[in-house]
Amino acid sequence: MHKSRLGTIVIDCQTADVDAAAAFWSQALGWPARALSDPDTANYRQFETPPDQPTVLVQAVSHPSRVHLDIETDDLDAEVQRLEGLGARRVQFVKRWWVMESPTGQRFCVVRPQRADFAQRANTWDADTDG
Amino acid sequence: MHKSRLGTIVIDCQTADVDAAAAFWSQALGWPARALSDPDTANYRQFETPPDQPTVLVQAVSHPSRVHLDIETDDLDAEVQRLEGLGARRVQFVKRWWVMESPTGQRFCVVRPQRADFAQRANTWDADTDG
Repeated sequence: MHKSRLGTIVIDCQTADVDAAAAFWSQALGWPARALSDPDTANYRQFETPPDQPTVLVQAVSHPSRVHLDIETDDLDAEVQRLEGLGARRVQFVKRWWVMESPTGQRFCVVRPQRADFAQRANTWDADTDG
Repeated sequence: MHKSRLGTIVIDCQTADVDAAAAFWSQALGWPARALSDPDTANYRQFETPPDQPTVLVQAVSHPSRVHLDIETDDLDAEVQRLEGLGARRVQFVKRWWVMESPTGQRFCVVRPQRADFAQRANTWDADTDG
């Protein structure tokens, strides 16, 4: 048994200026943006979204701009296997998360839990019936 | 003075089978999917997301698959002008909404209010100071 849910909306921006990209989306969507403390995440800006809603990030990337979804889970292996069973495929493991691709071609990531209410509100999957 | 906020996450799927695409994302994200009653929306499936969270739609499209965001607003013209002031550009008016493009190239739409708590929880913009 494990859990997962939609965790984050990641706004991937093909830019060298993550602050300019974050400034646009911050004002467009109405949430202040802030840098993250981990030096590993210098290319991210996180919005101050309500704690009961999906997190929203701006990420500076080198590939063409897009939007992608992150699924947060307490068991990365079990969730990736569940999603493979639904028709997704693994693309690459990066640092602490899996990049996957949906049957219709959208890239998405499977990441560790991001929000405090994960255990209370995420979906519960039974490996015997849903995996 | 007008209001807006993130309204909808639209999962655009390049497919002729909107039900198969919706079935994947429905099981991946853990929300039941349903068709909409308006015959104008036969290429959409809507997920039963919590009413206090952004709506999530799967849309069958002819262009390559992607994910895009909708901003909901009570004043389409004022919101489009506000977003132009932030650096976005108009792409096309479609039926009842504006397709726009962000400074970093993501397409997004500006649509009418979608959820019951819009008036209570959306951001308020003052045309004199924010437009």
